[in-house]
Amino acid sequence: MVAMDEAALATFLEAEFPQADGQFRVDRLTDEGLILRLVVDHTHLRPGGTVSGPAMFGLADVAVYLAILSRIGPEALAVTTNCSIDFMRKPEAGKDVLAEARILKLGRRLAVADAYLTSDGHDDVVARASLTYSIPPTARPGAD
Amino acid sequence: MVAMDEAALATFLEAEFPQADGQFRVDRLTDEGLILRLVVDHTHLRPGGTVSGPAMFGLADVAVYLAILSRIGPEALAVTTNCSIDFMRKPEAGKDVLAEARILKLGRRLAVADAYLTSDGHDDVVARASLTYSIPPTARPGAD
Amino acid sequence: MVAMDEAALATFLEAEFPQADGQFRVDRLTDEGLILRLVVDHTHLRPGGTVSGPAMFGLADVAVYLAILSRIGPEALAVTTNCSIDFMRKPEAGKDVLAEARILKLGRRLAVADAYLTSDGHDDVVARASLTYSIPPTARPGAD
Amino acid sequence: MVAMDEAALATFLEAEFPQADGQFRVDRLTDEGLILRLVVDHTHLRPGGTVSGPAMFGLADVAVYLAILSRIGPEALAVTTNCSIDFMRKPEAGKDVLAEARILKLGRRLAVADAYLTSDGHDDVVARASLTYSIPPTARPGAD
Repeated sequence: MVAMDEAALATFLEAEFPQADGQFRVDRLTDEGLILRLVVDHTHLRPGGTVSGPAMFGLADVAVYLAILSRIGPEALAVTTNCSIDFMRKPEAGKDVLAEARILKLGRRLAVADAYLTSDGHDDVVARASLTYSIPPTARPGAD
Repeated sequence: MVAMDEAALATFLEAEFPQADGQFRVDRLTDEGLILRLVVDHTHLRPGGTVSGPAMFGLADVAVYLAILSRIGPEALAVTTNCSIDFMRKPEAGKDVLAEARILKLGRRLAVADAYLTSDGHDDVVARASLTYSIPPTARPGAD
Repeated sequence: MVAMDEAALATFLEAEFPQADGQFRVDRLTDEGLILRLVVDHTHLRPGGTVSGPAMFGLADVAVYLAILSRIGPEALAVTTNCSIDFMRKPEAGKDVLAEARILKLGRRLAVADAYLTSDGHDDVVARASLTYSIPPTARPGAD
Repeated sequence: MVAMDEAALATFLEAEFPQADGQFRVDRLTDEGLILRLVVDHTHLRPGGTVSGPAMFGLADVAVYLAILSRIGPEALAVTTNCSIDFMRKPEAGKDVLAEARILKLGRRLAVADAYLTSDGHDDVVARASLTYSIPPTARPGAD
């Protein structure tokens, strides 16, 4: 039930989010979602060299968005309705941040997913987010 | 680094939460936390036979509380400071609800954990909660 | 645009939530929602005499539910999809807890509201919750 | 009990967040917090001209951070530990976004606040966030 694979998602990102400009990269699809990489550069950093909260929020948000698209295709104008995020540790300096998005529910009207953020090469969870997306009626006529 | 095992937690529950009166049961400790069972009876049900939201909230809350105690011992007067919970599906009628609590961070002052709720014998996640507990200074003098 | 007033809500509560048995009382409707009272008794208390977390969660949940019904009528089978709650202070011992629910968005598919909980006669916010309800398609044919 | 006024906060922003570069402006302090303006430019926009989720998250986060500093002074290295945000409506195109931050609790170890986001000149709440900050021990020796 994969509607878009890694290559299709990369093409979609470039076309629809030109301003993201290479900062996000889908590492791979998983059984339950995907892993998205934030290619960290100076625009994501706070003084002291840590990745900023908004950059981590954006990573979690895009990871879940793409995970949903990978299942239902690019027509869906899914919109974030809620995000709850816990910041637990400072990301490692100079490392990309990875978000593992996992879809918990893909309903007719709502999708719910988790995203766990880690620094590349490290196991500790840096931040944990849960997100809800609203899916427009036209996007999934036959589902649920 | 287990400070309290299943038996110690059961004794603690009986002594400290007499009003819970057998409604919670620790199924087992896991590497990252524990699995707590809500032994469902009519006091947990909404009209229609589903387990109520407050009962699920309570289960997630107690599961995380006990998971923290299992690591740092019963002296800790940890208090819930935040809970974000997503209700995704109706629990199965007539089934116990299980909460798998997983500690993501056990810091000197804050603990953060997830709890995934399922109906006994079913895989679909019924509800997902993340909770933050504040840990009093005296409880963990040497930690962090 | 009030679909149910205080008396209609009280009748609804008695009929649909007999197990609540007088523990909730609508103090009054407000411009943006309503104020719901938890008539505290020993079933709501934790050891030490404070109102428990699940009791506060339940109060916030019912307050928002009734606030939505007061606007769109009793047919709506609105269901809670998300709650984020911050516990900030211990409620005063021996006092009822009041929840002021305020609807922020009443859309065709989702309603979002806040609830601020205080101890009766005190100003400090004891807990703050935000809740999202999903509204079934049939409930609001003409809205949005 | 104001530790930093509008001018002090503006100086602090410039010195500590040079990368923010004029995008945030404290409109005014309020009794319970402050109002922060996001001076919207193209870097905050999604395709279609709406302000992006991460930009709104960042605005809420900075608004609460500055509201805390306005009470306890610039020494505090307060860090965000949790944010729950509801996105309710699209912001108006071409308008600044305002965040009204309101501190609900300013404890010795944790601060909890709300932020309501609106488009400049409009009343409807575009997004609602609640945030928790952890306050380091050294910052508030005498408080609580």
